[in-house]
Amino acid sequence: MADKSGAAQGAKNAKSASKADKAGAQDTQARDDKFVQDVADMDDYARWYQDVVYKADMADLSPVRGCMVIRPYGYALWENMVRGMDDRIKATGHENLYFPLFIPYSFLMKEAEHVEGFAPEVALVTRVGSEELEEPLVVRPTSETVIGYMYAQWVHSYRDLPLLYNQWCNVVRWEKRTRPFLRTSEFLWQEGHTVHRTEEEAEAETLLILNDVYQDFVEKELAIPVIPGRKSESEKFAGALRTYSIEAMMGDGKALQAATSHNLGQNFARSFGIEFQDADGQVKTAWTTSWGASTRLIGALIMAHGDANGLRMPPHVAPTQAIIVPIWRKDEERETVAALVAEVETALRKAGVRVKADWREERPGWKYNEWELRGVPVRIEIGPRDAATGQVTLVPRTDRSAKEAVATSAVAERIPALLEEIQQTLYAQALAFRQSRTYQAADYAAFKELMADKSKQGFVEAWWCGDAVCEAQIKAETQATIRNLPIEHPALPAGAVCVHCGKPAAEWAIFAKAY
Amino acid sequence: MADKSGAAQGAKNAKSASKADKAGAQDTQARDDKFVQDVADMDDYARWYQDVVYKADMADLSPVRGCMVIRPYGYALWENMVRGMDDRIKATGHENLYFPLFIPYSFLMKEAEHVEGFAPEVALVTRVGSEELEEPLVVRPTSETVIGYMYAQWVHSYRDLPLLYNQWCNVVRWEKRTRPFLRTSEFLWQEGHTVHRTEEEAEAETLLILNDVYQDFVEKELAIPVIPGRKSESEKFAGALRTYSIEAMMGDGKALQAATSHNLGQNFARSFGIEFQDADGQVKTAWTTSWGASTRLIGALIMAHGDANGLRMPPHVAPTQAIIVPIWRKDEERETVAALVAEVETALRKAGVRVKADWREERPGWKYNEWELRGVPVRIEIGPRDAATGQVTLVPRTDRSAKEAVATSAVAERIPALLEEIQQTLYAQALAFRQSRTYQAADYAAFKELMADKSKQGFVEAWWCGDAVCEAQIKAETQATIRNLPIEHPALPAGAVCVHCGKPAAEWAIFAKAY
Repeated sequence: MADKSGAAQGAKNAKSASKADKAGAQDTQARDDKFVQDVADMDDYARWYQDVVYKADMADLSPVRGCMVIRPYGYALWENMVRGMDDRIKATGHENLYFPLFIPYSFLMKEAEHVEGFAPEVALVTRVGSEELEEPLVVRPTSETVIGYMYAQWVHSYRDLPLLYNQWCNVVRWEKRTRPFLRTSEFLWQEGHTVHRTEEEAEAETLLILNDVYQDFVEKELAIPVIPGRKSESEKFAGALRTYSIEAMMGDGKALQAATSHNLGQNFARSFGIEFQDADGQVKTAWTTSWGASTRLIGALIMAHGDANGLRMPPHVAPTQAIIVPIWRKDEERETVAALVAEVETALRKAGVRVKADWREERPGWKYNEWELRGVPVRIEIGPRDAATGQVTLVPRTDRSAKEAVATSAVAERIPALLEEIQQTLYAQALAFRQSRTYQAADYAAFKELMADKSKQGFVEAWWCGDAVCEAQIKAETQATIRNLPIEHPALPAGAVCVHCGKPAAEWAIFAKAY
Repeated sequence: MADKSGAAQGAKNAKSASKADKAGAQDTQARDDKFVQDVADMDDYARWYQDVVYKADMADLSPVRGCMVIRPYGYALWENMVRGMDDRIKATGHENLYFPLFIPYSFLMKEAEHVEGFAPEVALVTRVGSEELEEPLVVRPTSETVIGYMYAQWVHSYRDLPLLYNQWCNVVRWEKRTRPFLRTSEFLWQEGHTVHRTEEEAEAETLLILNDVYQDFVEKELAIPVIPGRKSESEKFAGALRTYSIEAMMGDGKALQAATSHNLGQNFARSFGIEFQDADGQVKTAWTTSWGASTRLIGALIMAHGDANGLRMPPHVAPTQAIIVPIWRKDEERETVAALVAEVETALRKAGVRVKADWREERPGWKYNEWELRGVPVRIEIGPRDAATGQVTLVPRTDRSAKEAVATSAVAERIPALLEEIQQTLYAQALAFRQSRTYQAADYAAFKELMADKSKQGFVEAWWCGDAVCEAQIKAETQATIRNLPIEHPALPAGAVCVHCGKPAAEWAIFAKAY
């Protein structure tokens, strides 16, 4: 995996100021060595991921196969994510509401492609207490069908349109192989569902969500650069006319689909009878969209920014933005330090910084490790000497060697600025990494070579004929799928051919192995 | 039902300033007449409730029996409620997290009383796709069991305690008779689950939640006075040592349990093996609590404050706190009015007021009705004459006759103050109503007479022997149950006897018919 922080090296070079600090550096070094060993081989990336998730208390295994427990630290991150997305969903004119968890099984059958896509993995309630239900109920895998049924009752006239609604809820899709956050049988998400008068409006909505909600949120708050684009026919949502996605690169060069936005055309509107009387008096079938982003984004954040020392939380969504580690050896030192800690804590809280002080009876070095593992953006070390000089030491998670001494009086001004710098640094590092792992393949031999070399694993941009057969062959031969057809792409040059079959090119595509 | 606002009379007396206003008053009157007719008979209270829920777009029936759709207006209210409760839950030191929707059926069996209480009404997932599950999964009716299982793994030492966690989620309890918000097969709620070292700590937690979270929230934000107390043995939570509740009086005098807080003793800790090594080296069984409040609170709000004209939203949680109704007849008037509306809207938004302007092509009177039905605390009427005089008219939902003219420049100051007055008025009215419907019964004859007289329906305070048999007989004979044993109660006088059996009294109880 890519060590973007150089943290291990930084720790080695850092001058330890006290015995406590030295002990800390040793602990850190020992942990680094272990971690570096763990992740030195790319094959261990999966293990590194699970290690970080469980060791940083993000999630835990549950007694129900494929379902996870989201622990407080993971959930606090999710709450911050929800706020960031919800603000954008509302700012673009949408309202929240709530539909039932259960869907009559027959509803699923009404949209042919939809049932084919979801039927094998739905959980079915067949019994209540000791009583058999006449018709099984599906635990929602997504809610297009039950929402379509309700919308048909709410929409009568063109004056009722558009309906711009969203819900935050849990959904269940029984997965064969699960991994915390990335693929779980139950997950949390938002699903937006809108109804429009025209095809143009529905398409505009689909793209508005893709760009102004998802891309904007993921890039600005999660500090993950993404590529917005259209999914190929074979990768689109079951029942959609067109699916768009934003695709991000993870620390091992694989792709992760971070969110999707679907133009459902009139498919669901027809199946559920969402019709309206237009201004011209004609009864017309409406156009609908749906779009979703889930707790999977937590997995994306972990893999886009994590390094050998653990998580690196983007400050905008970090549950704890700054951790104060008090350093003392004797009781009287503790008292002096405590006064300074309280002062800094109060000042930061007033400045809107999510700050905590770690007063546990453990060595400072042990605490440094713990908070680095949890990815807290800034560590504030406060020792007895600081009390005398009226300053504290700041250590950014993005560069352990970039320690800075700051006057106590300036902390409330410096930390917010530093957090913003760290946010930008994380984005810049992720973007630079993606650029360094994005290739263009002139021909299929080059393509296959790139896909076979794990040390280069990344995105390959290439022209594609647009044929699903060709796409399937590429997947079978290289495991790479078309992530999406980027909205921003080069003009089709005269004579350009498909990287695989050599027939005339139609689309500029991003190929990658994916989560 | 009690007409607390005197709104119908107010409307009759209000001097209409323009033709549009007159039309409005007529519409309002017509609606009043209809509503008053609907609710004149107490038996129609249930119909009034359903009417308000559906007409005010709070909820809709869903295609799944007993499950409702919470529409945007109802959900926006819920979001404001969640914020108010969540802030208090966090301020008292709790963190949020998330446990799985599904619970292995065998878990339910581990706590004997618990399974007895919940088994008949649980929804069971027995199949995934076409595959039968080896063990059915329960869709959580409440999560003590799965959480107990996880806590047993998280708790090892007294240093791990207390665990102070809460989750916001959906739960399912298959109900025979359902009513929107009050009793639905699926509902939304928060469930807190904590683990403690000692019995005293668990009891203190149970009461902290009851008072500082639930009572404080419901009284201050929902403007509903409540009585905190302990549930009788027969009414306590299945598996609890002691259950506490806050009880509120609805507009028909019936009681509604607004939230519950349970001291679970060591029952669940024993069943799931939540043990810890204490400071003295001994391995001990922990003490746990759980506590919940749900979308039922929306039903409570509707019935505690609603009047003949519809909802009355407490300003603190109202989705829309002020509605601007522009009044114009000619196009040039519309323009003048629009400028003033924009000015007022901007000023209010800046002052943190949730404000909307209703520009629909409908008569002002129609809009007055609509927003009164939806319970928006303040209506702001802005007409062409207002533009000339530089003032607007404010009409509080709590008293339609208390119109006031306010200079445009003063609106941003006046409205927040008026909203606070309305909040206090709603609380005061609900409290006065409860007081007017709270009785003390000297003997069982008086008790039965009070319970039989629908026009007096309310709370009866009386001494009780503490015997469950006696409690059951009272219920069979009068339909009244013990709501709770209030924490604040008179001292037991010498020689006091049970209102029913005449044996020595043990507890001061509140009896009422209940939702």
